[in-house]
Order: sequence, then C-alpha cells, then structure tokens
Amino acid sequence: MEDQASAEVRERIEASFARQGLMRHLGARLTQIAPGRVHIALDRRPEVTQQHGYIHAGATGAIADSAGGYAALTLFPADADVLTVEYKVNLLAPAAGGHVEAVGTVLKSGRTLTVCRLEVFSVQDGRRALVVAGQQTLFRIAADVG
Amino acid sequence: MEDQASAEVRERIEASFARQGLMRHLGARLTQIAPGRVHIALDRRPEVTQQHGYIHAGATGAIADSAGGYAALTLFPADADVLTVEYKVNLLAPAAGGHVEAVGTVLKSGRTLTVCRLEVFSVQDGRRALVVAGQQTLFRIAADVG
Amino acid sequence: MEDQASAEVRERIEASFARQGLMRHLGARLTQIAPGRVHIALDRRPEVTQQHGYIHAGATGAIADSAGGYAALTLFPADADVLTVEYKVNLLAPAAGGHVEAVGTVLKSGRTLTVCRLEVFSVQDGRRALVVAGQQTLFRIAADVG
Amino acid sequence: MEDQASAEVRERIEASFARQGLMRHLGARLTQIAPGRVHIALDRRPEVTQQHGYIHAGATGAIADSAGGYAALTLFPADADVLTVEYKVNLLAPAAGGHVEAVGTVLKSGRTLTVCRLEVFSVQDGRRALVVAGQQTLFRIAADVG
Repeated sequence: MEDQASAEVRERIEASFARQGLMRHLGARLTQIAPGRVHIALDRRPEVTQQHGYIHAGATGAIADSAGGYAALTLFPADADVLTVEYKVNLLAPAAGGHVEAVGTVLKSGRTLTVCRLEVFSVQDGRRALVVAGQQTLFRIAADVG
Repeated sequence: MEDQASAEVRERIEASFARQGLMRHLGARLTQIAPGRVHIALDRRPEVTQQHGYIHAGATGAIADSAGGYAALTLFPADADVLTVEYKVNLLAPAAGGHVEAVGTVLKSGRTLTVCRLEVFSVQDGRRALVVAGQQTLFRIAADVG
Repeated sequence: MEDQASAEVRERIEASFARQGLMRHLGARLTQIAPGRVHIALDRRPEVTQQHGYIHAGATGAIADSAGGYAALTLFPADADVLTVEYKVNLLAPAAGGHVEAVGTVLKSGRTLTVCRLEVFSVQDGRRALVVAGQQTLFRIAADVG
Repeated sequence: MEDQASAEVRERIEASFARQGLMRHLGARLTQIAPGRVHIALDRRPEVTQQHGYIHAGATGAIADSAGGYAALTLFPADADVLTVEYKVNLLAPAAGGHVEAVGTVLKSGRTLTVCRLEVFSVQDGRRALVVAGQQTLFRIAADVG
C-alpha cells in the first residue's frame, strides 16, 4: 500500500508537522501520508526511552496521537484543522527495536468527529511487531487563518 | 495535602525517574511523591508544543502516564517495578498556561494490577484548570536487580 | 450530598429513562438526579449476571453509560439531547453485593462535547465498594420534537 | 472466514455462555467460535433499545465485552478462565439495523493478559455497517473446579 495523498494535502500536513515543536524535539518524522492514513517514525535514542531502555509509552503514545490527527486531516478541506478529544492505547510489548513506526488510520470520518485506529510497530532488521494498539477520537475545527 | 512518601520510596522513585531519558528530554520534573499519588510538572516551551503553541497532547499524556506509574510504585516493595498496560486520556481544554502538572492517583492497588486516575492541570498565575482526565492500568513485575 | 435537579429537569430525565427499553428490561432504576450527577441502581438477579454469578461487566457498563448520559443532560436546556461518543471502564472488583449503584458525574460540559466520570459501587449491608471506574465522552444533539 | 475452533473449545464456550444470565436475558446468541475470534448476535427488540429505538450502547458494549472474553478463552486450556480488566468502545453510528453482530478478535495473547479488538456491525438486508469499534484487556485466571 504505497498510495499517497495529493501534493496539496501532503504539503499542508508537512507544514503543520513542522510547527509541532514536540515532534521535532523527539526526532519524529513523517514517513507516509495516504488518504485516511499517516505514518510517523521515531528512532530509539536515549532521549525517548524509559528506565529500561525501551521507547517510553508516552513517546509512542505521542507519535500515535499525531499520526491519527494527521490521518483525519488528510480527509478535510484546507480550511479545517483538528483537535484530539481523547485517545486510548494498549502497550502490547516493549518497543525494543531500532525504531518504531506509528500508523493512524481513519475508521470513521464524520462531519464533526473522526475516529481513528492507532497502531505502533517496533521495527528491527526489517521485521515489524505490533507494540501499541489504540483508538482515538478527534474534533474538527476551523483552521487558523494566519 | 502535603503528605510525603518515606525517604526510601522517594529515593527509589527519583532514581528511576532520572533514568527515564524521555522525562529529562522533555524537561519534566517530579514535584511530589506521596503514598499512592505522584505529581510531575512540565513547562510550556517550544520543545513540547503542538502547531498552535499549546502543550502537545502527547506530552501531557506522557507525563500523565509516568505520574500514574510512579504512583503505583509508591505502594510496592523495593523489589517490584511496573509496566503500563494501557492508558486513556480525555483532553478537556488546551494546555495554555505557563506549565502543567500531572497527578497520578492510585484507585486500586491489586497484587498484579494497579488502576490509576490521571489528571493534568494547566497552571497560570497560581490558577489551576483541569485540562486532561484519564485512567490507566499497570502491571507489577519484578525489578531488575542491577 | 442530597442535592436535586429542578423538577423540570427530573421530569424530563425520568421520561427519557422510561423510554429506554434496555434499562427497564435490566430492572435498572434512577435513584438520584442532581445537577451534573445522576445515579442508577441495579439489583443482582440471575438476569444480569455472568457465569460466576456476579453482575456482568456489560450490565454495569450499560448503567454507567446511561448514568453519564443523563448527568450530561441535567445541564442542557429542554431542546437538547445527548449521544454517547465513547466510554471506557475499568473493572476493579467483582460486583458481588446485593445491588450496584452507577454514578455519572460531569467533569466538563462544553458546547458540543461533555466528559463524564463513571463510577459503579457494589453495595452490601450498607457498605459501598468501588467496582467500576470509567470515563465517557458525549455529544450534544437537538432533541427530537415528537 | 468460516474457520471453527475445535469441538472441545466450542462446547466449553457454549457451556459458559449458557451460564451468563445477562446474555440469555438480552437474547444474545453465539454465532461463531473460531480460534481467537468469537461472534455474538443480538436482535433489535424493545428490550434492548435506548430512547430513540436504536440498540442501546450498553447492550452493544455488553455483547462486545462477552465476544472479546470468549475470543480470549478459545486460546486457553480447559483449566483457565478469564476476567475483563477494562474495555473501551467508540460508538460510530446508531445501531439501526434488524440485528447487530459483535466480533471479538485477539490482538495479543500473553501469559497473564490478553488484548482484543472489539467490533460491532449493524446488519440490515445483508449489508453490514461498523457501528462500534473498541478495545479490551483481559486477565487469565484459574477456572472454577465445579
């Protein structure tokens, strides 16, 4: 599944992502922007780990939340933005690989609310293991006209 | 409520917190360690914000998750550690204050599982507003003997 | 805390509750309607138990969901109604008492979304034990004009 | 996907289901028992609806919770049983069809904890629409020797 969103949508999302200080500070990067699905990768570095050396649940939760928010945004017109209402994540296994990839996928895109599935995979030597499974609710708002 | 856990418990939790690369990288700091309740504060800086300049939901989620984990740990003996099974957070309002404080409070401490209430308050000029309400399940494990 | 909502609000909620076939079928009953807080009780009978004879998690979840929905409704004008967006419950202990009481409490009442805390207590010989802790998001809609 | 669990597993699950007073009282029925996946159907009748005539979120939550619990059980030996730790459901659309079918699918089966995906489909004239998406954590216990 190598499908891509339109250039306009990708530019919009890349510009928003670049303004997210937290994503930059963590070293997260957008790796795919498809219609209704966005991937964000994060390398395992000391800056994002917990006390056992695995990627912190808060860091995987953060990139999963962002992946879901941008997945919702791919289906909106340019004058819309999105806020997270809530998210819930189950941590299935330690994120022990060299990097993780979060995937946010829209399950339902409504007029006001969007619901996304959240997944995070730990990747080591090309093998992917599901380490986080979650779900998220988002609220559509008018974009700032800046 | 200025109660404090014992010196032994506080030292143990401060040592574990110091090993969490993510907490240090975000600039989070432990502000209270009471029996069954731990507080973690985070200043609003560009490194932890989202595209509108508020503290990122992923960052508030991360410190809430850590606060709950350490709250569970305050009630365990020294040879036990804790893993997050899952957490869920509702974002009630933008974290627009100068800093936020996450509070993890144990609701039920069982032999294997602990359930915590998670709250994050935005603080501005001494006024506190609840911006995140959540809940978390934790799993008790044997501590690494290092 | 014996505060009550206005007679108008209580009548509106009692009328809506009476139209909920599931609540009647389970034998649930409204026991308190306060502003931003509603209680619903359910007796432990074979019709609502699981395979070990405790009240089924689905039944405690159902009355908790209804209690939260009505708690939201106590703060709305008469021309508004409410839909559940999502709820999450942790089951802390078996519901082994003679009856349970669900309490829905509004944490945040917004223009479109309401967030409630959900609690269910098992009651035996006057003693109450927290058996379910949860959280719920609700969406305000226009009431049917019937 | 018409795969079935072994006769032994199906008998064990059918016997447990028959002891769940709530499932019988609601009129729920087991419709498929596959390894790691169980389906439960529920007809829309006045006994299970909310005030607008749709199947109550509490009823769809209840059968989703049971479907996940039994999905976990299909992967356990005969001397094990299961308790729900927590579940979370998003209600995506009203359950307006003639019946709903809940599907519980194991995402991760660990020694102590199992995590399931929960889905409920509304079915009308052979068309299925996803109306509930959720997630659930379960705890393995020793079965009662009865």
